[in-house]
Amino acid sequence: MMHDVYIHDIGAALGDTTERNDSTTLGQSEVECQRLADKIGIYSRPVAAPGQYTSDLARAATDALLAQTTTHSESIGALLVCTQTPDHLIPGVSSRLHGQLGFPTECFVLDINQGCSGFVVGSQVIANWLRTSGGNGILVNADTYSKLIRRDDLTTRALFGDAAAATLYSTQRKGLHIVDCRSYADGSGYDAFIAHGSALRNDAGLRTGICMDGPGILNFALRKVPEAITLTLDAQNLRLDQLRMVLFHQANSFMVGQLARKLKLTVEQVPQNCMNLGNTVSASIPLLLKEQMDSLRFGDLVLAVGFGVGLSWGVMLLEYVGND
Amino acid sequence: MMHDVYIHDIGAALGDTTERNDSTTLGQSEVECQRLADKIGIYSRPVAAPGQYTSDLARAATDALLAQTTTHSESIGALLVCTQTPDHLIPGVSSRLHGQLGFPTECFVLDINQGCSGFVVGSQVIANWLRTSGGNGILVNADTYSKLIRRDDLTTRALFGDAAAATLYSTQRKGLHIVDCRSYADGSGYDAFIAHGSALRNDAGLRTGICMDGPGILNFALRKVPEAITLTLDAQNLRLDQLRMVLFHQANSFMVGQLARKLKLTVEQVPQNCMNLGNTVSASIPLLLKEQMDSLRFGDLVLAVGFGVGLSWGVMLLEYVGND
Repeated sequence: MMHDVYIHDIGAALGDTTERNDSTTLGQSEVECQRLADKIGIYSRPVAAPGQYTSDLARAATDALLAQTTTHSESIGALLVCTQTPDHLIPGVSSRLHGQLGFPTECFVLDINQGCSGFVVGSQVIANWLRTSGGNGILVNADTYSKLIRRDDLTTRALFGDAAAATLYSTQRKGLHIVDCRSYADGSGYDAFIAHGSALRNDAGLRTGICMDGPGILNFALRKVPEAITLTLDAQNLRLDQLRMVLFHQANSFMVGQLARKLKLTVEQVPQNCMNLGNTVSASIPLLLKEQMDSLRFGDLVLAVGFGVGLSWGVMLLEYVGND
Repeated sequence: MMHDVYIHDIGAALGDTTERNDSTTLGQSEVECQRLADKIGIYSRPVAAPGQYTSDLARAATDALLAQTTTHSESIGALLVCTQTPDHLIPGVSSRLHGQLGFPTECFVLDINQGCSGFVVGSQVIANWLRTSGGNGILVNADTYSKLIRRDDLTTRALFGDAAAATLYSTQRKGLHIVDCRSYADGSGYDAFIAHGSALRNDAGLRTGICMDGPGILNFALRKVPEAITLTLDAQNLRLDQLRMVLFHQANSFMVGQLARKLKLTVEQVPQNCMNLGNTVSASIPLLLKEQMDSLRFGDLVLAVGFGVGLSWGVMLLEYVGND
């Protein structure tokens, strides 16, 4: 038997320090910093403290989730962590978290590696799991990109924030029903967003750290994301104006605005929160969804749209079925 | 509708160089090297060349798989790479592979991070995927642990080999039917097998590289693995003597022998191949299964048993349903 899967609740955690996109941080004139911040719509970002790692953010977000839900940790059948900035290559962050939280031995524990599509992809993995097994599962999206960003690379430094979101999934009908979920990939764009010298390949001659082809990614997103949204809507016989909201990955306000314009979405349909969070990689959609949860009404349709590193992109259609 | 999932075929690739567990490699007397090699049952191991990375091994194994199967790459709906030694933290090895192979855009592409349980865990992820979507998928298990092993740490250096296996899964009835699959975790053993300084945590004061609590892991495996096997067999109303073979992760011959003895399995039931491969992490079970494929007869039951880093362990029951 195949179960339906629902998103019940989301816990959040932010890096301990705050970095403002100002002259002190970026080393440019105040006028230039202001112009940059206005364009990307990002004015400050949470940044992990020097001794704060992805597992710490993942733990804090999961603690927050468990504190606000009535679901007991003994009932968690799957614990997934989606990260590209783990504490160690061996073992995964999910192992550390599993040990700290004392989750059951029968729990399915796994790290997956994905960037800004990681909420959609992670939701697919955990939903496929719960569809066959039933029960409850947690997906944690957590990253500390700041530790891989070159301090003098303003194009990436001004964008990214360090944060985590822990999302509770269940086969018990409540919250947001996962109606449809699709992922896409084009590995020919492997180099469009890459962290040189970050693992085992010897990238001698290349500058260590995150390297981003910004215009290439913007171009890719404007081409592929609307196409993927159309495919999902067509498959469900829906129109864009029937969606209560479209939660785009918060790459930056400029890119989200361009996508919204191209799709002719209203401002009310496209909430944003990157102003003081920045681009929090795969945590950005669940952090935004968490803010919007309380405003949802029975029957509301919500589209979650991830895109980025890989290159990869994905669309998930959710329907709010109430909270009791 | 839920589809049944089958393992059709396996492709393999080994590191380009060979390291013998002899005096030259290990820096001990020939007598001591011989004693060590006899105890662990590992005499030589494939090791990746300096310029050879996990993506290269993954590519070679997948090329070998595609060359020996009639399944076309256009029909591959999921491409998973299980590794703990990626080329980069960002993006994953699966992205690189997807781009090199020109797989379809609609393909589900993902890296998962798991060690010696990675064949069982990866099979679960890809089987859950295919169960709902149908079609074909590939799981690649690939690692180059040699790049994280300290050259003077004989306890790990003498054990690990660099290799990859690419396994084709399908909902078309052929090969080995996945009857049952279960994974377990105990994150309190996070430190029992860890690579210090391998990603973003500052492990100042600790020696960089893989650090293994050998006796701790042996003790854990002898306690947890037989228990998990019993749970799977009980759930299927089976006895150990009904299994044609039990494919243990090839940790080393000593550990596999101890497990076989504890479970009172016959020598014929427990094939081994670590003598000239070493412990190839999550690739070890599919490499062993590949060797045994041709000897299987209709109705044969095969158990695949992974255990190791995390700590984690898992058991998968397979039934051979023929090859046409």
